Parts: sequence; structure tokens; C-alpha cells
Amino acid sequence: MGKMIEEFNGYRTKMNDRIMETANTNIKRFIALDTTTYADGALNVKTKEMLGLVASMVLRCDDCIKYHLGKCHDEGVSNEEMNEIFMIANLVGGSIVIPHYRRALEYWDELNS
Amino acid sequence: MGKMIEEFNGYRTKMNDRIMETANTNIKRFIALDTTTYADGALNVKTKEMLGLVASMVLRCDDCIKYHLGKCHDEGVSNEEMNEIFMIANLVGGSIVIPHYRRALEYWDELNS
Amino acid sequence: MGKMIEEFNGYRTKMNDRIMETANTNIKRFIALDTTTYADGALNVKTKEMLGLVASMVLRCDDCIKYHLGKCHDEGVSNEEMNEIFMIANLVGGSIVIPHYRRALEYWDELNS
Amino acid sequence: MGKMIEEFNGYRTKMNDRIMETANTNIKRFIALDTTTYADGALNVKTKEMLGLVASMVLRCDDCIKYHLGKCHDEGVSNEEMNEIFMIANLVGGSIVIPHYRRALEYWDELNS
Amino acid sequence: MGKMIEEFNGYRTKMNDRIMETANTNIKRFIALDTTTYADGALNVKTKEMLGLVASMVLRCDDCIKYHLGKCHDEGVSNEEMNEIFMIANLVGGSIVIPHYRRALEYWDELNS
Amino acid sequence: MGKMIEEFNGYRTKMNDRIMETANTNIKRFIALDTTTYADGALNVKTKEMLGLVASMVLRCDDCIKYHLGKCHDEGVSNEEMNEIFMIANLVGGSIVIPHYRRALEYWDELNS
Repeated sequence: MGKMIEEFNGYRTKMNDRIMETANTNIKRFIALDTTTYADGALNVKTKEMLGLVASMVLRCDDCIKYHLGKCHDEGVSNEEMNEIFMIANLVGGSIVIPHYRRALEYWDELNS
Repeated sequence: MGKMIEEFNGYRTKMNDRIMETANTNIKRFIALDTTTYADGALNVKTKEMLGLVASMVLRCDDCIKYHLGKCHDEGVSNEEMNEIFMIANLVGGSIVIPHYRRALEYWDELNS
Repeated sequence: MGKMIEEFNGYRTKMNDRIMETANTNIKRFIALDTTTYADGALNVKTKEMLGLVASMVLRCDDCIKYHLGKCHDEGVSNEEMNEIFMIANLVGGSIVIPHYRRALEYWDELNS
Repeated sequence: MGKMIEEFNGYRTKMNDRIMETANTNIKRFIALDTTTYADGALNVKTKEMLGLVASMVLRCDDCIKYHLGKCHDEGVSNEEMNEIFMIANLVGGSIVIPHYRRALEYWDELNS
Repeated sequence: MGKMIEEFNGYRTKMNDRIMETANTNIKRFIALDTTTYADGALNVKTKEMLGLVASMVLRCDDCIKYHLGKCHDEGVSNEEMNEIFMIANLVGGSIVIPHYRRALEYWDELNS
Repeated sequence: MGKMIEEFNGYRTKMNDRIMETANTNIKRFIALDTTTYADGALNVKTKEMLGLVASMVLRCDDCIKYHLGKCHDEGVSNEEMNEIFMIANLVGGSIVIPHYRRALEYWDELNS
């Protein structure tokens, strides 16, 4: 596993554990919804993760992008498909998305190496 | 065709025509990209329109939402699929998306009536 | 009840009913969270509604603003307190909040008339 | 004076008057800063109004856009210059800016008619 | 004082000093407003800092979040109250706020250690 | 050349090269537009770079800010002019822009040292 991936997953896991120790019931429900929302349904997991990724890109949340890139990788999204998602994100969100696209591409490369 | 749809399409067409009359070359290229980006490719049109919709919802652009709802309808997105897109948009973008979800649902109903 | 308030509440109620008829389980849970989050707790309802209002203002969601203005009015927020919320929203969110502040003030006046 | 311009200016003036009647000192200082910031200085008024316009467009605030379009018109911004501002706004802010560009163009046409 | 707090305060102080050396009058007035806005008034400092925090969270500004977390800590905001603020921010701003919530919780822990 | 500038340019160049190796035709067209948009035209390069900077600041994209600061420096923007751009960005975008202003000022100082 690459260094960026390890670092991202490590911090995410550590703080998610801390959230579970400290959060109130509403926060726990919100976090639970964040999981069930991406489960297989009328849309399959791959499609949902692509939706989560494009939403994260236009909102320019690097951590959310990394998370959904990892999931898209697990779901077998191809480079050609990923480029089309990147393009929709760049187009809809504008050139301010490009720095996030750079970092996303670097992370995607690490996922695929 | 319902009243909201007619009004939306009418204004959009009128102003797109006016853009074509007045825009410079770069703007015309940008508008052209906005069309080619959603063409069939590694991802099919239906998937791309769903991506465009969720991006529009989290960025809370009612006109963009209407446009992609129309395209999703043309591509045969079902109510169950649409609800899962709505959920991802509400979850990722938060409760500030809800007023846009209300208007999206009203427009979706008109598309399906 | 003033005209803007009636119109806002009418549409909101109509579409919330339609959401309840059509939404999936996750959306219903999300909507439920939107209610329980503002219930009396470690922070009282008045404080929570002020928090909801300032968040809505900096995110520039007119419908969310109207909703929380109504709740703040129910909770007895004074004009002096409201002005301090308006100021924090204008300062943090910047001058692009001013048009929303204008509409918020108009609605607040109607709530208080 | 065109209908959109009259309506925009009318509401803006009415609510600015109401703000002056009701606002606290900090809000009044903030509003004052909003005026002095665009005054002639190291950058001339025309340049500043173009900066205010592009900022308003990428933040997608229709009322702010109308205001700065009016000021740009007063400062003699040409159609060619305006198109280049529109392009920068569309590029940086992305295709979600396009609906605001449509309305901006309609308003710009009214200012020039 | 923890390491994150020290680092945050150090850079903030250094650059605020540099701003004071270089800024023009309008910027200095804006910075001054940023202080007076959170002073005790119709709303007390604690409430205002909670408002500043929730606004910073939904706008996803990590530095602003750290600043207001420090102030909330000074004002005696309890863990239970903080969790309710975190929940409102997550709900209103959506799951893209979660990475900021993770970092906020880590910083809040350091403030309380 | 200062350390921040070197680091920024190095990563940007590395990833732009990687984009050119991997991107599809639409992405390449989008990137090309990002260059032609800032070319000399009805507005000169200096004005366009100032427009790009203020747009980047209100959208709070640090990498975009650094890029346009570099270009503004090349175009001979003075400290007095830069302060007026900073002020418009702070005013329009609000106090959440201040942390980006701090980093921008630090980078601007490095460009001028």
C-alpha cells in the first residue's frame, strides 16, 4: 500500500474511532447514514461511489475525494471512466477544481501502482 | 409538456441563442465542451447525466438541476434510482440542499406526468 | 400571517408531504435527523436555531434562512440579538451575503408585524 | 430605464433604507466598507468594479452581479471586455456559472438598450 | 499548550503582524470589525463564538474553526454543547464537513488536555 | 527563487505533465482554455490576472491564489494595487478569506524578496 493511502487511512481510522468514543446519538446516526447511503440498491455501489466522487470534487474536499477514489478503485473503475469523471468535475466545478484534480490523479496513480 | 419545463426550456433556449450571437471564441469553446463532456464514452450518457445532476445538487444550482433532471428522464432513470441520487446529494451537501431537493422533486414529478 | 410567510410555509408543507410520499428510507432518516438535531439538549432550542440561521446565511440559502427566522421568532429572539446574528453572517460570509440579509430583514419584519 | 433594472434598484434601495433604520453600528460600518472599497485608489473604479463582478459571478450571487454590471456599464466597460470577464467567471467557476451568465447577459443587454 | 495550538497561534500571530505592517486602511477596518463583532452585546461572547464556529464549519475553513474552537474553550463550552454544534454543522453542511469535524475534534481534544 | 515558490511550481509542473500523459481530449481542451482565457485581448494580461486572483481568493483555492499571485508579480502589480485586490476579496468573500489572505501575503512577500 502506498504512503499517501496509508497516511490517509490511518488518520481517518484514528479519528473515526475517536468520533465513536465521543459523539452524541445524532452524530452517530449521521455517520451511519453516510455508510448506508452508498450500499447497493437501485444503483449499484460502483455508480454510487462515482456519484460520491464527483460531488466531492466539485465541493473540493480532498479527503472526501481520496475516500471515494479508494472505493472507485475497489469497484474496478477504469482509467477511461475515471478521466470522464474528472472531466465532469472540472467542467461543472471550474478551473478551481484543477488543483484537486492534480492531487486526485496522484492518489489514483498510487492506488493503481 | 408541463408549465415549469416549458418556461425553463424557453428561457434557456432564448438566452443560449443570445450567447451564440454575442460570445467570444473562448466562451463558445467552453459551451461546446459542456456538450461533448456528457456524450457517450467510457461512461454511458445515463451515468454521466446522473453525475451532472448530483454535482448540480450539491452546488445548489436550480437551473443546472432542472437541465440534468430532464436529461435523466430522457435516459430512463427510474424513481428508485432518482431517490438514491437525491439521497447522496442531501447527505454530501447537507440540509441546505433540501430546498433544492423540494424543487427538484416538483420538477421531476412534472417530467413524469 | 403575512403573505411571504404564508407562501413559504405553504410550498414547504406541500413538498414535504410529497417527499414523505416518495422518499426512500435513507432520505426519511435524514429528514428525521433534521428535526431531532434542533431539539432541546445541552444547548437550548433558541441557541440551536440561531446556529441554524447563521449557518444558513453564510451558505446563502434563502429558504433555510426563512425557516430558521421563523423558529428564532418563535423562540423570542430580539431585534438586537438578530442584528448581531446578521452581523456575524455578513462578516464571516462577506458582502455576497448582503442580498440575503436584505431578504432576511424583510421576512423578519413580516414575522414581527 | 429597463424593467429589470428598475425592479432591482427599487428593491435594493428600499431594503438598504430599512437596513439603515434597523442595523447596529457594526453592520453600518460593514456597509460603509462596502462603499469605500470600490472607490478610486491604486486601482481605478473600472478595474475594481470588474473585480467585484468576477467575484460575484464565481460566487453565483445574481443580485451582486446585477449591481456590478450596472457599475461596469457606468464605467464604460465594452462588450468585448465584458465577454472576457464572463469567460474568466465561467472558466474559474465552471458550468454552474452558466445560468448566472445567461441572466447577466440579459441584464447587460437591458443596460445597453 | 499542545503542539497544534502553538503552531496555529504562532503562524496566525506572525502573519497578523505582517498584515498590520502592510495593509491599507480598509483592510485594517475590516480586521477591526472582525474583533468588535464578537464582543459582548445583546448576545454574550460564548454564543457569538458558537455562531462563529458553526459558520466556519459549514464553510469548511480549518483555520477559522481552530480559532473559534479556542475561543469556545475559553468561554467554557462543554463537550456536550460542542457535540451539538458539531452535529448542526455536519447536518447543515453535509458529509463533506466530516473531514473538518475530524480535525476539529482532534484540536478540541488538544485544547482540553 | 524562494522555497514556497519552488515547491509550488515543482509539484504543479510534475502533475501537469502527468495530466498531459493521462488525460482525455476533453480535459486537454479544458486545460488549453485555461491558458487562452488569460491571454492579452480586450483586457490586458495584468487585468485578467487580477480577475483570476480575486476569483481564486473568494473561492478560497490556495493553489490558484499562488498561481495568479505569481502572474500578477510578473505583470508588475504593485503592493498598493495588491492590497486593494486583497481588500475586495476579503470584503466580498468575508472573514473566512482571511486565512487565505495570510498565506497569500506570505507568498507575495516571497515573490517580492
